[in-house]
Amino acid sequence: MIIQLEKEIGADELTGIELKLNEINFKSRRVTTQDADYLVCIGKEDFDIRNIGNLKGVKDIHRVSDDYKLVSKKWRVQESQIDLGDGVSIGNGAFQMMGGPCSIEGEENIRQTVEQLAKSGVKIMRGGVYKPRSSPYSYRGIGIEGLKLWHAICQEKGIKIISEIMEEKKLEEMYPYVDIFQIGARNSQNFNLLDAMGSIDKPVMIKRGMSGTLDELLYSAEYVFSGGNEKVLLCERGIRNYEKTYRNCFDINAIPILKEKTHLPVIADPSHGIGLRRHVPQIAYASAVAGADGIIVEMHACPQKALTDAKQTISFEAFEEMVKKVELLRGVLG
Amino acid sequence: MIIQLEKEIGADELTGIELKLNEINFKSRRVTTQDADYLVCIGKEDFDIRNIGNLKGVKDIHRVSDDYKLVSKKWRVQESQIDLGDGVSIGNGAFQMMGGPCSIEGEENIRQTVEQLAKSGVKIMRGGVYKPRSSPYSYRGIGIEGLKLWHAICQEKGIKIISEIMEEKKLEEMYPYVDIFQIGARNSQNFNLLDAMGSIDKPVMIKRGMSGTLDELLYSAEYVFSGGNEKVLLCERGIRNYEKTYRNCFDINAIPILKEKTHLPVIADPSHGIGLRRHVPQIAYASAVAGADGIIVEMHACPQKALTDAKQTISFEAFEEMVKKVELLRGVLG
Amino acid sequence: MIIQLEKEIGADELTGIELKLNEINFKSRRVTTQDADYLVCIGKEDFDIRNIGNLKGVKDIHRVSDDYKLVSKKWRVQESQIDLGDGVSIGNGAFQMMGGPCSIEGEENIRQTVEQLAKSGVKIMRGGVYKPRSSPYSYRGIGIEGLKLWHAICQEKGIKIISEIMEEKKLEEMYPYVDIFQIGARNSQNFNLLDAMGSIDKPVMIKRGMSGTLDELLYSAEYVFSGGNEKVLLCERGIRNYEKTYRNCFDINAIPILKEKTHLPVIADPSHGIGLRRHVPQIAYASAVAGADGIIVEMHACPQKALTDAKQTISFEAFEEMVKKVELLRGVLG
Amino acid sequence: MIIQLEKEIGADELTGIELKLNEINFKSRRVTTQDADYLVCIGKEDFDIRNIGNLKGVKDIHRVSDDYKLVSKKWRVQESQIDLGDGVSIGNGAFQMMGGPCSIEGEENIRQTVEQLAKSGVKIMRGGVYKPRSSPYSYRGIGIEGLKLWHAICQEKGIKIISEIMEEKKLEEMYPYVDIFQIGARNSQNFNLLDAMGSIDKPVMIKRGMSGTLDELLYSAEYVFSGGNEKVLLCERGIRNYEKTYRNCFDINAIPILKEKTHLPVIADPSHGIGLRRHVPQIAYASAVAGADGIIVEMHACPQKALTDAKQTISFEAFEEMVKKVELLRGVLG
Repeated sequence: MIIQLEKEIGADELTGIELKLNEINFKSRRVTTQDADYLVCIGKEDFDIRNIGNLKGVKDIHRVSDDYKLVSKKWRVQESQIDLGDGVSIGNGAFQMMGGPCSIEGEENIRQTVEQLAKSGVKIMRGGVYKPRSSPYSYRGIGIEGLKLWHAICQEKGIKIISEIMEEKKLEEMYPYVDIFQIGARNSQNFNLLDAMGSIDKPVMIKRGMSGTLDELLYSAEYVFSGGNEKVLLCERGIRNYEKTYRNCFDINAIPILKEKTHLPVIADPSHGIGLRRHVPQIAYASAVAGADGIIVEMHACPQKALTDAKQTISFEAFEEMVKKVELLRGVLG
Repeated sequence: MIIQLEKEIGADELTGIELKLNEINFKSRRVTTQDADYLVCIGKEDFDIRNIGNLKGVKDIHRVSDDYKLVSKKWRVQESQIDLGDGVSIGNGAFQMMGGPCSIEGEENIRQTVEQLAKSGVKIMRGGVYKPRSSPYSYRGIGIEGLKLWHAICQEKGIKIISEIMEEKKLEEMYPYVDIFQIGARNSQNFNLLDAMGSIDKPVMIKRGMSGTLDELLYSAEYVFSGGNEKVLLCERGIRNYEKTYRNCFDINAIPILKEKTHLPVIADPSHGIGLRRHVPQIAYASAVAGADGIIVEMHACPQKALTDAKQTISFEAFEEMVKKVELLRGVLG
Repeated sequence: MIIQLEKEIGADELTGIELKLNEINFKSRRVTTQDADYLVCIGKEDFDIRNIGNLKGVKDIHRVSDDYKLVSKKWRVQESQIDLGDGVSIGNGAFQMMGGPCSIEGEENIRQTVEQLAKSGVKIMRGGVYKPRSSPYSYRGIGIEGLKLWHAICQEKGIKIISEIMEEKKLEEMYPYVDIFQIGARNSQNFNLLDAMGSIDKPVMIKRGMSGTLDELLYSAEYVFSGGNEKVLLCERGIRNYEKTYRNCFDINAIPILKEKTHLPVIADPSHGIGLRRHVPQIAYASAVAGADGIIVEMHACPQKALTDAKQTISFEAFEEMVKKVELLRGVLG
Repeated sequence: MIIQLEKEIGADELTGIELKLNEINFKSRRVTTQDADYLVCIGKEDFDIRNIGNLKGVKDIHRVSDDYKLVSKKWRVQESQIDLGDGVSIGNGAFQMMGGPCSIEGEENIRQTVEQLAKSGVKIMRGGVYKPRSSPYSYRGIGIEGLKLWHAICQEKGIKIISEIMEEKKLEEMYPYVDIFQIGARNSQNFNLLDAMGSIDKPVMIKRGMSGTLDELLYSAEYVFSGGNEKVLLCERGIRNYEKTYRNCFDINAIPILKEKTHLPVIADPSHGIGLRRHVPQIAYASAVAGADGIIVEMHACPQKALTDAKQTISFEAFEEMVKKVELLRGVLG
């Protein structure tokens, strides 16, 4: 059960609600986000919800049978829309493409990409400055100076930045330069990092774990939301399986199912989802018509020369055509 | 390596080719299909292919580095088109919807379905008369009499029939009434059944195994093709994984990858692919824009009352809307 | 619910039982095996089981909440023991090793293997004469003449034969020469073949499907048992997963779990379970101490030269040591 | 390639080696651990390794074709042994059982467990004080005060402590009280946390990820080792799959394969590996005979009442019997 409290709730009113919850043996947790004030209540007893709904200080109340609460569509039927400023929104009908290199490589790489995004009317640029790598001997990213440069160039052109954060320690220095923090697949259940994301006011996109369930992804989102940050996006990026002809198995089913379970926006990542440049557009089209609220892809002026993940990085030309077709397909479904 | 022989090849010419193959230590297997006459040649030695290509009796010759040969796109770049008669074709640009109940239930069920198909302009009806069931105590299908009735009704309306065959023993009695034989997921590597399918002249649609690889599916197709039957279709129907919110994981990646590897048509089965009625259309749209040559779905006048697989069976209304939207989406991609 | 009938049940008594079942809306299926006569009853109503248990003609009765019935340990608490004759039994404390080549290669191969088995005190020889192969161009086995020869040599030495049957059509010709029919992983849900196995009086070992669930394996066993053949063995042979350093993932958990769910013997196949010769003994030891009733492995006088599956075939020396250690380990657990 | 340097290598000698590496286009990274001083060298050129091996300052040199280097058995053939002090070692023949509750619950719980461990001659106690939980609303552990209490009681009895660390931030406060730091499955690829573990001098046990590959586990170990900490243990704890009758699929294959690939000790966790109390001993026996260097299990005086993971927690009696049988089984294999 979730109780949304009135903004100006008095101490007496709150006590009244808590007493009532005690009576029915419900435990509650106060959650204050940038948008509202909630009590997330967990218990098993059966009771007449109106007895609480009628109390002073209660703005809204719903039973939520799902194990995750605040991110559930049973709590909020209306889809959430995340506002990035400057007229860029995601969710509840607002669709966004995001493109950029796997790793930010340097000024020329940034400028070329920004130019292509502008040309295609795309408002969000992706790129890694700290890279999670299986091997300790692999390249680990351009770091904070690269991020600052990237931010400076994007700001000129009104492009928003999405980039992965791998540890809480980096939050402070990255904060001013990132518009959406990405939590990578390997950190999808790094609960301390998720807790940290709950304390900020900027959007967070959580990628599904390598073999994560959809419920686990929703739970991870609940960590951030219940920590105080409502601006959460979910990302399907393919799951691990036995098939060897592609990198990951893009789980197209995840899109309609997540959209049914949660009010949060769902983003598709076809680059990691299939891992082969020449098939990325087909998976992007599929994602768009299956109901995704956004698509994030890896692109590069010269894909074969991309510093990392070259195999799945598409060319600017392919990106441009893809953006156009995605728009047309979305137009058909209305 | 595949050698296509001239239709009227003489015994001497054939001997000439075989001698040459012996010289380079290649083993060959003669394959005669309804369309052509081939030698499938397997060996490792390096040689100048023109030395064989120039021989009398050779119509065409290609190296095929894939382990499957006749179904490989390295042999035949042009996509195959399968002609069902009466102007109904699949593949190489010809797209077909297929719909019908999981199990054929009886006359009313057939008539209602046929009527809906006609209304939607759909030419192929699916339905099981012999059903593979995990439990020996479950309903095993209406059997041959049901098939005959079904065929009679379909013929009136010009609708083609696709139905599953589970054992070679049933081939003779089913043959006159079926237009496309379906090999189910559990029989995807039933090699004796595949051999039997190679001996007939009617199209065969092979479903991917429960956890089959794409290569295994192509090998199974090679069984049928190399047995003498070129009319093979492949079907992606979802694979088993750990996720519990849906029945199978529809492998959208399989569509572009199969289309790249083989010249055979690729059909999508979103009903089994997600297993939840309300999400079937999204997966159908995704399949269409990812490049499928056809879509097969379970539909019923009253889905909740379907004899089998009710959970994944869509209503006539949903089917009708889906058919229309699939056409519009395909129109966009051209 | 399962009702075991008295051997000499009269028609009146049977009618009495059936009437009672009708009253409580249970459907029943008569199953007559080589050992006994049953009614497998399926229904949902709640009732006092003694009202049926007290009827004439009823020898034994049990509720079975599992979906499979006759193979459930809820029906038969006592483990089944399968008697191969000549003092060779499997199950209920009787443990058997089985060894032999992947494919039967010819007389020398048979004689060498038989000699090694005798030396190690092993009573059952494995070997394929019809081989399931992903590719239609691979070797498909020595066939019926090889089987006859094999049988002749084994009979001299009192060795029993286990071999795979791939299609019902071959049953008659194989029948006299095989002591245990193996149903391969790819045919684990070939229900027509399972039905055929239910009609014979010889033991059948069913391998778990490539990605089969344990319930599916038990259902497949139920097909054979409910068809009239109680002599069923189950075989864990590894399942498909994403890991690339071995062939299959031997599911050690399957052994204690199957032993808990069913009274049928459980055999381990470490050769396919890990697929790497040098690690087969460790998996055999693990299987033995986890509770397997038997172990089946691929062995060859010269493993590298084995006709098929050379990678996972162990040497005679390794086999000999393995057999000894398995016995010692089993001794410890008592 | 790995070069072990002489302890007292001079600056000139090091320069000599680096020049030689430059000549053959190898990049090198200096790694100084508590035991030795290495250059991990990565390059592709072919050359005579003796040209470097003969240089002054080189103590040992090996080519390592694996992608992980310092943890590879190609570098160090001799198995590593990790010394916990007070005569407790793991690896290279030294085997250790570890037992304790899922979560440390309080003083009584600790005292009871310590007593049982002492009775069974077990030297290492497991327990969580910070718990990773899918849901933000679940119990998250007793925290640092609980750890201090636990440490005080264990020290009296000479019992060592293994406990999970979830974030670098907690390292300092946990450090004095933990003998082996556990990295949980969800943090198996939390590379920043692994980096932090490389900077300490205490043993670290890394659990395989939920669907981690064995190579990924070895890479994670390489992170810690190349960070300067040689005291690394690997833990197989089951992987996620489709089967629903158990919690995880204990990958018994992982044990012999890891033991072949690395010199580091391999620990088995049958509690998480099957997740069902009654089957934990069978999986422990299997692990022991497959070659594990240690076994870690969840145990509790009253398993049904364990605060977390009750389903997989065994009783003290079961633990005691298990420890005895594991010893006997290991005795057989010698």
